Amino acid sequence: MIHLRPILFAIGLMLAILSAAMLVPALIDLADNNADWRAFFGAGVFTFFVGGLLVLMTYSETPAQLGIKDAFVLTTLSWVVLCGFAAIPLIGVGLSYTDAYFEAMSGLTTTGSTVLTHLDSLPRGVLLWRALLNGIGGIGVIAMALLILPYLRVGGMQLFHAESSDRSEKIMPRALELVTATAGVYIGLIVACAVVYALFGMTAFDAICHAMATLATGGFSTHDLSFKFFQSPAIEWAGTVFMLLGALPFVVMIQAVRGSPITLWRDEQVRGFLSFICAVTLVLGIWLALTQGIDLLTALRLTAFNVTSIVTTTGFASDDYTAWGTFSIGVFFLLTFVGGCSGSTSGAIKIYRLQVAGMLTRRHFTHLISPHRVVNLSYNGKRLPQDVPFSVVAFLAIYLATVGIFSVLLTGMGLDLTTSLSSAAQALGNVGPGLGDIVGPSGNFAPLPAAAKWVLSFAMLLGRLELFTVLVLFRAEFWRN
Amino acid sequence: MIHLRPILFAIGLMLAILSAAMLVPALIDLADNNADWRAFFGAGVFTFFVGGLLVLMTYSETPAQLGIKDAFVLTTLSWVVLCGFAAIPLIGVGLSYTDAYFEAMSGLTTTGSTVLTHLDSLPRGVLLWRALLNGIGGIGVIAMALLILPYLRVGGMQLFHAESSDRSEKIMPRALELVTATAGVYIGLIVACAVVYALFGMTAFDAICHAMATLATGGFSTHDLSFKFFQSPAIEWAGTVFMLLGALPFVVMIQAVRGSPITLWRDEQVRGFLSFICAVTLVLGIWLALTQGIDLLTALRLTAFNVTSIVTTTGFASDDYTAWGTFSIGVFFLLTFVGGCSGSTSGAIKIYRLQVAGMLTRRHFTHLISPHRVVNLSYNGKRLPQDVPFSVVAFLAIYLATVGIFSVLLTGMGLDLTTSLSSAAQALGNVGPGLGDIVGPSGNFAPLPAAAKWVLSFAMLLGRLELFTVLVLFRAEFWRN
Repeated sequence: MIHLRPILFAIGLMLAILSAAMLVPALIDLADNNADWRAFFGAGVFTFFVGGLLVLMTYSETPAQLGIKDAFVLTTLSWVVLCGFAAIPLIGVGLSYTDAYFEAMSGLTTTGSTVLTHLDSLPRGVLLWRALLNGIGGIGVIAMALLILPYLRVGGMQLFHAESSDRSEKIMPRALELVTATAGVYIGLIVACAVVYALFGMTAFDAICHAMATLATGGFSTHDLSFKFFQSPAIEWAGTVFMLLGALPFVVMIQAVRGSPITLWRDEQVRGFLSFICAVTLVLGIWLALTQGIDLLTALRLTAFNVTSIVTTTGFASDDYTAWGTFSIGVFFLLTFVGGCSGSTSGAIKIYRLQVAGMLTRRHFTHLISPHRVVNLSYNGKRLPQDVPFSVVAFLAIYLATVGIFSVLLTGMGLDLTTSLSSAAQALGNVGPGLGDIVGPSGNFAPLPAAAKWVLSFAMLLGRLELFTVLVLFRAEFWRN
Repeated sequence: MIHLRPILFAIGLMLAILSAAMLVPALIDLADNNADWRAFFGAGVFTFFVGGLLVLMTYSETPAQLGIKDAFVLTTLSWVVLCGFAAIPLIGVGLSYTDAYFEAMSGLTTTGSTVLTHLDSLPRGVLLWRALLNGIGGIGVIAMALLILPYLRVGGMQLFHAESSDRSEKIMPRALELVTATAGVYIGLIVACAVVYALFGMTAFDAICHAMATLATGGFSTHDLSFKFFQSPAIEWAGTVFMLLGALPFVVMIQAVRGSPITLWRDEQVRGFLSFICAVTLVLGIWLALTQGIDLLTALRLTAFNVTSIVTTTGFASDDYTAWGTFSIGVFFLLTFVGGCSGSTSGAIKIYRLQVAGMLTRRHFTHLISPHRVVNLSYNGKRLPQDVPFSVVAFLAIYLATVGIFSVLLTGMGLDLTTSLSSAAQALGNVGPGLGDIVGPSGNFAPLPAAAKWVLSFAMLLGRLELFTVLVLFRAEFWRN
């Protein structure tokens, strides 16, 4: 039995919050004297009406008890419904429903693929709405990773069960306090990022929009050229640092802010993540300097920014890295799969799964060589829970199989193999750009057939909800009592 | 401690057998009055000398006890060394060492990628040697899958432990008898295939060469056009049937021959394999008939042959399926990963691993929905051994990761992403053709840079030995006492 009442109540509340956010672009369009304000205002009123109605109809004095099945339905349904409503103002300003839904899904899942062209000449309301979708999506992703996914035990997320990790550390006794603190750090970082961007020469509007897209590791820009538009090394380095911050585990950042910053470096996931980014940046930077004849510092800035952008699944570009040669294309294709830390706004496979998979592989080899030796695994100083190994490896296998299946669907729509594989991989990883002329870093998703946009929207949803949360709903036994 | 003496003894014996095989092409070149016979004869004498020396130097009255580490070393070393010697006659006829080693590795691992061009005008000795490499490789692969890999427990091969499966069925009490029976069925099928090919119009020479390459699921042809050369629907259908037979588990075929043929269909792996081939052939055939405007029967013949060729990892082509459109390219890319049945000559991931992974995925979903329900898994009516699930899923994850890593290496050598990904995938799966102009079904591996040929040779070895058998040797702890 699914408890629809509390599910609809929660979705109603979220719609009410979303409707409030729609008033912000309405106000800026009104100030700019742009008629688009009606689209945002109208959509806001409608969304508030529906949300409010849901809240009123489903309100109950007795607190709701959500079972595990309810949590699965709530999580998937809320993203699908919120994207549907977030698309309404975009329809109001002239997009087709397919394009509007794609853009809303890309925004809220902090993917950053766009079907909008000529961004530089668009009214500020639309641009701000896209940035807000990234910003709202980001906090939604973190809250979900902290509160819901560990409880659903999808893909090894049980490693990050707030309860169990807090029992030993006693820093955050209660869930609500945790979310409040996280939101505080998140918003604080967005403000800091916007200030830095503005100091380095962005307009206030660009700084605010890009700060939201940066910390959300979303990647929506207000310019077709993305970060290349600014032609500013300082802005690029600032972007690199804040994208990295957006991809760090927020719980660890809270501990670092409250305690000593060394906590961050003690975290196994953070250490692995930063070492990986540094290693790839160095190798690719030296290769770029040698093969393209540019000086090493420029090469390192270019690779640091673009590697960080893809690994954190942000998707900004400061250069068309697919023009750097086949090796760069191969590397960036693989980077699409990596992802940042768990409990951050970034997507894809994520560092901890790769680290756990690495440990398991080493243990498997030991087991092949000496069948009777017992090897205990621990992560971040704690014994690995019994069901984590299989969860993680199953996640990896299904993740890669899903990329394969979605690629074949896309080739069936007439897209070439590179475009199909890379768009499937980037959508599932919530990265943003793919490879090839159409979906590459200097391309645009607009020319794709409508069916491909729906397939990619679904892939973004799947990836954002760590696959199993959505896939479980397609099992007949889920709906049996 | 590695016991080198019995390892070198076994390799010496294998070299002696290989040297005998070299006399066959020597004889045919001699009959054709072609000077190449010296290359084969000389290589044969040299190989016999080295093999004989090894046997004499390492012979011991007391029977050898091979430990698990010795078995790993023996397996990998014997393939590497045998390929080295099998390449010698090819150097003798004018190939570079890189090309000769690539061709020998491709032949013995029954991959079928070739660096030789203008096959139709080559002397018969070289063509026969390539066919023999496929044929010898095929029986080597089956013997290894029956006797060694289950004992090494790599990638879930312990499912097919001859001992445990025989205990219940009592059909094959001893290993030697099992191998003799297998060799009998294998050679019998090659003869039958050659007779059928000749009846349908191939020359005796072509029939014998193609029969070996067919049952070995190797795919070396004597014509640049592969099966398209014959322009014969009957030959194509015969090829389809015998490729399927080469990809069935030989132990089950022995049971079918001795008992009732229904045994074959009762086998879960065989059923899954044949159903999969039929389903893909039907879907792709209907799609081909609809989009290319050819009649359905022709379309089904084309798809049956080429789908079977790739899924069984043979690699013959009766048409350039990459010219059928993007959907076909996407489908054939995925098919490169599938593979045939365990205990056959085919490579890649193999059906039983996909079936086990499917069962595990279903159980994982059940576990997510009802955490406390206990689900017991069985395969072919037997309870799944405890270490099989993790072995299989780890194999899948490492298989796909290896394709990714090899692809990046190949892009670093200047190959485009489609060529790199598809050649890495086909080499690891011992398939033969990749995708794209260079390595596609109407292309040739000759233009690849030498480094790429070595990378692909290594990938073929890795895939043929089920990854772990080779990778385990790269662990420091393997060499520690």
